[in-house]
Amino acid sequence: MKIIRLIKEMSNFSCLSRQKGKTIGFIPTMGALHAGHLSLIRCARKENDLVVVSIFVNPSQFGPKEDFKKYPRNLKKDADLCKNEGVDVIFYPLVTGIYPAGFKTYVEVKELSDMLCAKSRPGHFKGVATVVTKLFNIVLPDTAYFGQKDAQQAVIIKRVVMDLNLAVRIKVMPIIREKDGLAMSSRNAYLDKKERKSAAVLYMGLKKAEGLIKKGAVNPQYIIRRMKNIIEKERAVKIDYISIVDAEDLRPLKRIKGKILLALAVRIGKVRLIDNLIING
Amino acid sequence: MKIIRLIKEMSNFSCLSRQKGKTIGFIPTMGALHAGHLSLIRCARKENDLVVVSIFVNPSQFGPKEDFKKYPRNLKKDADLCKNEGVDVIFYPLVTGIYPAGFKTYVEVKELSDMLCAKSRPGHFKGVATVVTKLFNIVLPDTAYFGQKDAQQAVIIKRVVMDLNLAVRIKVMPIIREKDGLAMSSRNAYLDKKERKSAAVLYMGLKKAEGLIKKGAVNPQYIIRRMKNIIEKERAVKIDYISIVDAEDLRPLKRIKGKILLALAVRIGKVRLIDNLIING
Repeated sequence: MKIIRLIKEMSNFSCLSRQKGKTIGFIPTMGALHAGHLSLIRCARKENDLVVVSIFVNPSQFGPKEDFKKYPRNLKKDADLCKNEGVDVIFYPLVTGIYPAGFKTYVEVKELSDMLCAKSRPGHFKGVATVVTKLFNIVLPDTAYFGQKDAQQAVIIKRVVMDLNLAVRIKVMPIIREKDGLAMSSRNAYLDKKERKSAAVLYMGLKKAEGLIKKGAVNPQYIIRRMKNIIEKERAVKIDYISIVDAEDLRPLKRIKGKILLALAVRIGKVRLIDNLIING
Repeated sequence: MKIIRLIKEMSNFSCLSRQKGKTIGFIPTMGALHAGHLSLIRCARKENDLVVVSIFVNPSQFGPKEDFKKYPRNLKKDADLCKNEGVDVIFYPLVTGIYPAGFKTYVEVKELSDMLCAKSRPGHFKGVATVVTKLFNIVLPDTAYFGQKDAQQAVIIKRVVMDLNLAVRIKVMPIIREKDGLAMSSRNAYLDKKERKSAAVLYMGLKKAEGLIKKGAVNPQYIIRRMKNIIEKERAVKIDYISIVDAEDLRPLKRIKGKILLALAVRIGKVRLIDNLIING
């Protein structure tokens, strides 16, 4: 397994590999790899000749008061996990490589970047769309793998790929959960023991809503109210939002119909967590 | 010579050509081709195995009160000119192909898109940066050719290519002028006989400034004043701006030094014209 730091070296590797007819599967990450990332890597490993994992804690997707500085970083551990999964290349660029002096260009997705998580994290999805576009142009993947955990991100990336005519297939893989249902996330590491226990309530809320919808509930406001009741029982958990939207274009829904995305964000102490469920209503 | 309308067909052509090791030279245009465009095509013809010219009057770079509808369109004439120059493909996409329903993604270049021409044409360079990024991703050129006439556009495109890690070389070719010095432009066709005669004053103003700088003038405000005096002698010509900026990053200059860009825009009747000169001060 190679660890590549220079953009030029990465793009040369990718160009040469593509010229030789090798397919490239790509998993862009911020490191702190967990079972969710590993499920993406395994899928990429099965489907491609070469697997590239990028590890880049992207400053442009963090707000000024967010956790950029304290975001967990452990290259040694991440590299061991990647090696175990048969990854060919870790692309581990410098911040000054991705954002050199004079950098001025951003990729923005209108509407989709103003709702759900964007309300608490203004500018976040502009940072994501920009860095992912850059990484795609450097790594030249045939297929890139994303987790359904970041549902809004997945919808936005698919939109960018379509709109900018990028030649990448996007594959979104199911959320991997802990035994009690908590969605795997690098930020779970921030939770203390008590908070970690409270966090299980997110999935309980989502499953409650799923149950209601399966029994025929069609009013999003009613469903959201029932979820709130469950989640607010945990005093430590502060709801940021609970939304029921169209799973393809994130359009808010007045009535449950078709493929819907049930998405929520909460704060537990200083930690912001998100989770979601896709349901065929 | 092929005329391709479908994005899928264009990108298949480009992929296959690149796989065969052919180099592609690309000239993105809005049609209404003139000697300026032809100079780009000739250069591309010399330097590449294949030459692709796109003809697309891009709605997203026109303001609501601008000339999108009346912009000159003449595919037959453009196609004849291209054929004569040995162009291999004209890419002539539909507006609904480039901007399908649900389109939401834009490429924006901060700062560079807020100055000079952008003040009179808000959103213009966002439209340009977006469509050029899309066209590059579809046509996959090794080298793309732009005219120095659109100086700000050239600087912005170079910035986009660097910032988004696009694998395209940008070549900017000199302005081609009429006998009286007027820079070739598709919009010159809008001018009536009298206006056309007045338009020569733009180049006179630029040459005056060049003369002053060669004689040692270093104060941009003084030079701009002298240019104004010349240009305003033509009553029909209304100055939009005259600016002296750094040629690489368009930074306004307080003193003439290094490679400078002398840029101006005027209105003659309803027609907006731009011109510029690069001078080593």
